[in-house]
Amino acid sequence: MRTATASAYSSSANLGPGFDTMGLAHDAGLTKISVEFIERSPKVELELNCGNLPTNPSENTASLAVKNVLESQGINGSFRICISNDIPLGLGLGSSGASAAAAVVAIDSLLDIGLSMDEKVNFAMLGETASSGTPHADNVAAAIYGGLVMVESTNPMKVRPLKINRKFSFLTILPHMSIPGKTRISRTLVPSEVSMSQHIWAIRHTSLMVSGFINGDRDALRAGMNDHIVETSRMQMFPFYPEIKKIALKNEAAGVCISGAGPSILVVIDGETDVESILSGAGAVLKSTGIAFSILNSNLAGGAYIPEN
Amino acid sequence: MRTATASAYSSSANLGPGFDTMGLAHDAGLTKISVEFIERSPKVELELNCGNLPTNPSENTASLAVKNVLESQGINGSFRICISNDIPLGLGLGSSGASAAAAVVAIDSLLDIGLSMDEKVNFAMLGETASSGTPHADNVAAAIYGGLVMVESTNPMKVRPLKINRKFSFLTILPHMSIPGKTRISRTLVPSEVSMSQHIWAIRHTSLMVSGFINGDRDALRAGMNDHIVETSRMQMFPFYPEIKKIALKNEAAGVCISGAGPSILVVIDGETDVESILSGAGAVLKSTGIAFSILNSNLAGGAYIPEN
Repeated sequence: MRTATASAYSSSANLGPGFDTMGLAHDAGLTKISVEFIERSPKVELELNCGNLPTNPSENTASLAVKNVLESQGINGSFRICISNDIPLGLGLGSSGASAAAAVVAIDSLLDIGLSMDEKVNFAMLGETASSGTPHADNVAAAIYGGLVMVESTNPMKVRPLKINRKFSFLTILPHMSIPGKTRISRTLVPSEVSMSQHIWAIRHTSLMVSGFINGDRDALRAGMNDHIVETSRMQMFPFYPEIKKIALKNEAAGVCISGAGPSILVVIDGETDVESILSGAGAVLKSTGIAFSILNSNLAGGAYIPEN
Repeated sequence: MRTATASAYSSSANLGPGFDTMGLAHDAGLTKISVEFIERSPKVELELNCGNLPTNPSENTASLAVKNVLESQGINGSFRICISNDIPLGLGLGSSGASAAAAVVAIDSLLDIGLSMDEKVNFAMLGETASSGTPHADNVAAAIYGGLVMVESTNPMKVRPLKINRKFSFLTILPHMSIPGKTRISRTLVPSEVSMSQHIWAIRHTSLMVSGFINGDRDALRAGMNDHIVETSRMQMFPFYPEIKKIALKNEAAGVCISGAGPSILVVIDGETDVESILSGAGAVLKSTGIAFSILNSNLAGGAYIPEN
């Protein structure tokens, strides 16, 4: 086989109090990566064909992930990576993580390496450094495993999928804001210390959120998916968020959070949610700011996969 | 009716990363409280008959809880409170919380007040100030509700029971150490701030622990029930703990933590646990320190109740 293709879904990291810990895969978008073996070569050479993504291999999460896999296996050669992506870029929906995840799955399949799930997450995380500067595993773990995942440790990499109740689905509200260096900037806004009372508050809310997801308990999820540490510290970047959150909760959203480093907002919904009122209310808020936006419906998604054909 | 009796079980608070947040009721011990109406009186007068507990009403959690209930209802009178308790005192098994909880349930029943569950927790928590100086709700919430509970907020009081898998049971290892002012001292050892990396670590472990309890997933529970913030800061009080924890985990305990403010140790067990080896190993450690000890088997317990005669 000279070409392998893999797909991976969009994801939302953090989920309120779960900063740098949790990720949730949804089908708001999909990235498809093909890796083609071109020829033997005395070193690793990667050529990118990426639409609107960075084509410098050291700035692209997919090629950086592939490079890390190849180097770890001592494999040289010339490869062409082709990326077809419909996950909105730079809006906090894990587009770079999905690229890295799909790329690792593709190269693993192409060369029949047999990486474990956690090894795939690890290589995809190394690819993510091209995007954020610091390796973080929450989006790539969700993209590799699917569903809701908990990153238990990154060294060694250990991800634990949390089996959650499937009654919830999602709205992703996407303000079309370009914030250059967003992930790096948003990391600098995170405080280096938290008070014990803030810490306890967050532990409570994390527990509620996790129990809400697992038991399908919308009240626990609504109570739990709140954060006063990371979301609050980044609020200056997303002044529209508090009002949209208020509107969504008033209309019986089962939970609302900033998706990853933003600016997108993840709204958890179920049969009790008044989706129409959220769409119109959130739309009105964003219109008043002059920021263009779109809103996508999505469901919990599975992990990265090799499409048939 | 001139007398009402209520019972409440022992409990373990904190559970590793769940400091000031979680409590778990078990049947390692039971407290039984009778409240008897003696006569009308222009003020609240309480008489205590308590075995080995403080008989000064302002130092006893049961009478302080009853006093708070009576004052909130504007009820005066003279009452006799009789406490029969087999929960070891001052060892971190929630004896004071069980007393406060049972007392509130008894006075509520005696006067047919009709307090809600969370109101009962609130009054019992006020009773707990007699024991610790600062109100904390984790033990009383477990004693009122039973099972595993999460204190969502204390003002207003809101407790959320977490429906957990019932495959787990417990060993409580009780070093018979008297540490005067233990709860107060142990609170002063808790740091006032935690670093962001410690915080994230704790969020991860809390999530794993909660998912482990709910899903009956021993691997998640073993991974999650670990704490580097509160337990570590108090370790000087319990130098035997690390070694006992190591022995318990080596012998397939499903989780190990300091019970409340210690010195007792809660060991979560299931069918895969080598209980005999834990008993002998922990016993050997404590014998080597010269501290007398006992070890109790227990199961998840229900909430405070009115016994049928």
